[in-house]
Amino acid sequence: MNVSSAVAQSARSTTAIAQQARQAAQELALSSGTDRNRAIESIAQALESAAADITTANQLDCEAALADNLAKPLYGRLKLDAVKLRGAIAGVRDVAALADPLGMVQIHRQLDDGLVLKRVTCPLGVLGVIFESRPDAVVQIATLAVKSGNGVILKGGREATRSCQALVQAIRQGLTQAGLNPEAVQLLTTRAETQALLSLDDDVNLIIPRGSNAFVRYVQDNTRIPVLGHAEGICHLYVDRAADLQQAVDLALDAKVGYPSACNAIETLLVHRAIAAEFLPKLAQTLQAAGVELRGDGDTRQILPGLSPAADWSTEYSDLILAIRVVDSLETAIAHITAYGSRHTEAIATTDDAAAAAFMAQVDAAGVFHNCSTRFADGFRYGFGAEVGISTQKLPPRGPVGLEGLVTYKYQLVGQGHVVATYSGESARPFLHRDLH
Amino acid sequence: MNVSSAVAQSARSTTAIAQQARQAAQELALSSGTDRNRAIESIAQALESAAADITTANQLDCEAALADNLAKPLYGRLKLDAVKLRGAIAGVRDVAALADPLGMVQIHRQLDDGLVLKRVTCPLGVLGVIFESRPDAVVQIATLAVKSGNGVILKGGREATRSCQALVQAIRQGLTQAGLNPEAVQLLTTRAETQALLSLDDDVNLIIPRGSNAFVRYVQDNTRIPVLGHAEGICHLYVDRAADLQQAVDLALDAKVGYPSACNAIETLLVHRAIAAEFLPKLAQTLQAAGVELRGDGDTRQILPGLSPAADWSTEYSDLILAIRVVDSLETAIAHITAYGSRHTEAIATTDDAAAAAFMAQVDAAGVFHNCSTRFADGFRYGFGAEVGISTQKLPPRGPVGLEGLVTYKYQLVGQGHVVATYSGESARPFLHRDLH
Repeated sequence: MNVSSAVAQSARSTTAIAQQARQAAQELALSSGTDRNRAIESIAQALESAAADITTANQLDCEAALADNLAKPLYGRLKLDAVKLRGAIAGVRDVAALADPLGMVQIHRQLDDGLVLKRVTCPLGVLGVIFESRPDAVVQIATLAVKSGNGVILKGGREATRSCQALVQAIRQGLTQAGLNPEAVQLLTTRAETQALLSLDDDVNLIIPRGSNAFVRYVQDNTRIPVLGHAEGICHLYVDRAADLQQAVDLALDAKVGYPSACNAIETLLVHRAIAAEFLPKLAQTLQAAGVELRGDGDTRQILPGLSPAADWSTEYSDLILAIRVVDSLETAIAHITAYGSRHTEAIATTDDAAAAAFMAQVDAAGVFHNCSTRFADGFRYGFGAEVGISTQKLPPRGPVGLEGLVTYKYQLVGQGHVVATYSGESARPFLHRDLH
Repeated sequence: MNVSSAVAQSARSTTAIAQQARQAAQELALSSGTDRNRAIESIAQALESAAADITTANQLDCEAALADNLAKPLYGRLKLDAVKLRGAIAGVRDVAALADPLGMVQIHRQLDDGLVLKRVTCPLGVLGVIFESRPDAVVQIATLAVKSGNGVILKGGREATRSCQALVQAIRQGLTQAGLNPEAVQLLTTRAETQALLSLDDDVNLIIPRGSNAFVRYVQDNTRIPVLGHAEGICHLYVDRAADLQQAVDLALDAKVGYPSACNAIETLLVHRAIAAEFLPKLAQTLQAAGVELRGDGDTRQILPGLSPAADWSTEYSDLILAIRVVDSLETAIAHITAYGSRHTEAIATTDDAAAAAFMAQVDAAGVFHNCSTRFADGFRYGFGAEVGISTQKLPPRGPVGLEGLVTYKYQLVGQGHVVATYSGESARPFLHRDLH
């Protein structure tokens, strides 16, 4: 079979898989919140029962990965031992405890006597989630899909295939035991299926890619299905002339070193010229002690000789590297962020409330922070209970997205034979438009 | 100049126009609701002052259109006399009376002592609005853009160029008189500029196409900018076995004849077999008297001999034509709608509440209606005050979209030096996550 017929073959079977998922999702959408929570508990129990099979499958994946010389960080994420699995199962039960995102009445309005409008949340339909090696992501994503009444088609990394298969088998068993259709959760295993998935705009309602920037950009460029996610996280901390300098050092440290490859870590620090000579040596002492390589523009390197030059302001280092630029004003800092930021999260350190207010109004980003670390940009930290992704698109959902990103709504209008002719023309009857509670 | 260099030339100038709009929009975003309402009143006054110039420009457009043999309905929409203009200006003042869509606090949550999260609405940035001949659309769209703090780039039909220029000149004058930057409202006049507009994903945040289905589909297929709108409106009325037959006839009449080219008019009527023989003659009597051509499937044509066959179920007639199909059950009706509906608005006529509940839960559409006309699917009728479009996409905003479709939000987080390290690891401090108010 040549490549293109392999793709065609795969497209056919992926379509069939998506249609099964859609059918099951339609059933799931009609289930009650209690039913869905019962199914989630049943999934947790099935995962517990299958724990030995799952960790054995993962050991096989890990051995194969070692033989294949998989990069160390990827290997660390691939590994799913009994402890990590217990953590993932605890996460499943956490999702059951979240509020039901379905059936929420967002608008309840009497348009006229006997004519009542409701806007009610409902599932999106079928989610396509493509992620790299971490197999425990399967558990979290499948649980969020069930909670929100959606079907889900999962595609994990090739190196995690056995682990994903064992996990999905247990999850589907859990659904079956709870009396729900297991076809709501599907697993793809080949790259050709991923390509096919991106073309299924009739059957798949949202794609969530989790992986490298390049991968997310590839997905965005190769599908007409809406994509939830972001390709880049270039975040800044601007240290204003009126900053508390020690606090600003602490914020920079937290925003850079805790998890440097996080999308909400900072890549660039901007510092006001008036305090640069005092601030930068303090910053350098703390950050260099924490293993951070500082790079600077010309002004920075005059204050901190020996730094490498900052090559550009558009690189997401995802590493212990921080670029530093001295700016003449708040306005220049905002202009820099407008030019180079990825609209993810931007922070100002200042004791000047007017400067903070200007920054927060003028900076266009999903998150604008004052005197706190950019790393708070996260669904759990915001109190959403679960995070399905962080969006840097301007249209909602923007920023960290919880379960609300997996639901939509429909307008339900109930009348008693009402026609619009009554409300049109010369003697048009006026609408009441009275909100009910 | 050959075509491609004309396009390149136009791309350059359209980019410059978009950047001017973006700059002005950034200023507008910082203005208060009072400022924006004052600007809207100033626009209304400028339009009143320029009324003679505007109607004269429109007469020239109309004469040219007559000479060009413009189709009659297009000509009717092109015409903007003093009465229509007065109506449009009244509409401007209506927009001023709407609630300010900006600065609304959607989430206000204390994450911990001294660490407070707000989600606040803000403008999208720059809107690109492309519409066919109706020049009064300029007035409505520009006003909604100013109200929502957005810049707007307008492109009207070629045949309305003089009218649009006169209107935009007055609108910009109104902005200037109110002390706002007039560059927030821009007009394009050539097709090459439209093409260029669709490529400006760095400077334009939302495209709103208003025109034929084919045109909307063209726009959707030729831009990476988010598009608000819908290509098709194939809506159904299902007359259940338990329907009040006279009421169902009234609903069908209203949903078909009031404005047959409206997207929320019905194209197909589905009727349960158990009542078809009684219902269809009543329906035919009323609808044929109103000038509607009925077409039917085989079963319908046995009851109503002499009808043409319904050729397919996928055509949006946008005319006084109604296709009829007899179905065996509620389930078949829902399956038909799933197969052929455009997810716009779907209605059931029935006195059986269980059937209505099943229909409203299972039909996937922006609007699901019970015992009322599909033509209520409209932002004004829903009480949104203004409508920027109707979306048949599944993700929000879905259905009729008011000003909320022109805004997004940002997360503002204010701390006192808070770092995430405090909330991580062994002795992690728990979050408070207490909603304020």
